[in-house]
Amino acid sequence: MEIKIMKNILDRNQNKASEVRSLLASKKVLMVNLISSPGAGKTTLLERTCEAIGSEFRIGIIEGDITTDRDAQRLKKYNVPIVVINTEGGCHLDSHSISKVLGSFDLDSLDVLFVENVGNLICPSQFDLGEKFKIALVSTAEGDDKPGKYPMLFREAKAVLLNKIDLIPHTNFKPDNFRSDLKMINAQVPLFEISCTRGDGLDKWIDWISGEINKPI
Amino acid sequence: MEIKIMKNILDRNQNKASEVRSLLASKKVLMVNLISSPGAGKTTLLERTCEAIGSEFRIGIIEGDITTDRDAQRLKKYNVPIVVINTEGGCHLDSHSISKVLGSFDLDSLDVLFVENVGNLICPSQFDLGEKFKIALVSTAEGDDKPGKYPMLFREAKAVLLNKIDLIPHTNFKPDNFRSDLKMINAQVPLFEISCTRGDGLDKWIDWISGEINKPI
Repeated sequence: MEIKIMKNILDRNQNKASEVRSLLASKKVLMVNLISSPGAGKTTLLERTCEAIGSEFRIGIIEGDITTDRDAQRLKKYNVPIVVINTEGGCHLDSHSISKVLGSFDLDSLDVLFVENVGNLICPSQFDLGEKFKIALVSTAEGDDKPGKYPMLFREAKAVLLNKIDLIPHTNFKPDNFRSDLKMINAQVPLFEISCTRGDGLDKWIDWISGEINKPI
Repeated sequence: MEIKIMKNILDRNQNKASEVRSLLASKKVLMVNLISSPGAGKTTLLERTCEAIGSEFRIGIIEGDITTDRDAQRLKKYNVPIVVINTEGGCHLDSHSISKVLGSFDLDSLDVLFVENVGNLICPSQFDLGEKFKIALVSTAEGDDKPGKYPMLFREAKAVLLNKIDLIPHTNFKPDNFRSDLKMINAQVPLFEISCTRGDGLDKWIDWISGEINKPI
């Protein structure tokens, strides 16, 4: 019974996601679904990204959080439109919650809409929000064994960002182990090794995401 | 409708959890439900704990993982009975999965049964497994704002372990911010500030958990 219910929930989510995707395509807005564990650096990545491309592209942000608007407060200084979705305990965003808040944006005035999902490496990867693609972010502090242990997200992601590479000398993280683990799950996916606090590798991420924004939706 | 279904699932989980709790009480086994984000250090904490109290107490371990038995492999060297539950995509353990594997242990020969839940700061806190109590583990690399952002677990936990304090000098983690954030959510909960790799603070955790094992169930 539970499997059937889960299938119904996912089917309804999928239908609404398709609507969202059509709407965003008609408005030529690229929606990116950013997924990671708690504290891997999603908000800091958005800060660096706003700084780097905020004058070139028109950015909007949806902040998914269980409670509080702390992440949105951090992003306010970039003067981009931000809407917070508090899931009140919910472990992921879904397409219905996204659909409801899209009306709060002037979609004709956006190039890209970043969705910062709830901090969770598992559930968000199962819910299509209507995004063009998912980005997986993982921190070196989480260990080099995460792609194999949490394969769904790494299989689905259009790009993988390995953040906090500045911490590697202080941990037992082995970059080669991580790379080979990821390769086993998703051999083709681009990997960006970055430090959002120190700046390493961000130029390559910025080039890549700029290229994606410039592609026809 | 979804709320009713969720209530049914939680009710059925609760009933089975009560059965598990009664069984473990009759066998005088303390079951501890260990919850954290991916990569916060649950397995390393169990390694250090086995080393410290493995000769004094009879330990058993249930390893919850989406896939792979990597964590169990790391723990094999301690010669304690270990059972792996692979959730095959599921984001948390539930009381039915625990109940099914209890038969694999000789409960008359155990003092404590540690359950390492799936790496997820959200969903596992909603599912009673029949444990005596939950332990929340969080890593400094996740940032000092986690109690307020993910309050459910911190509200429920009988103790909170802040791991990887050796990384503090290399991050923007502010211990005072973390402590006051935690105090707002759960003013009474004991907090252990530890480094499972370097050893800091582990003596206090070991004293505390030994005391809990020694209490009548």
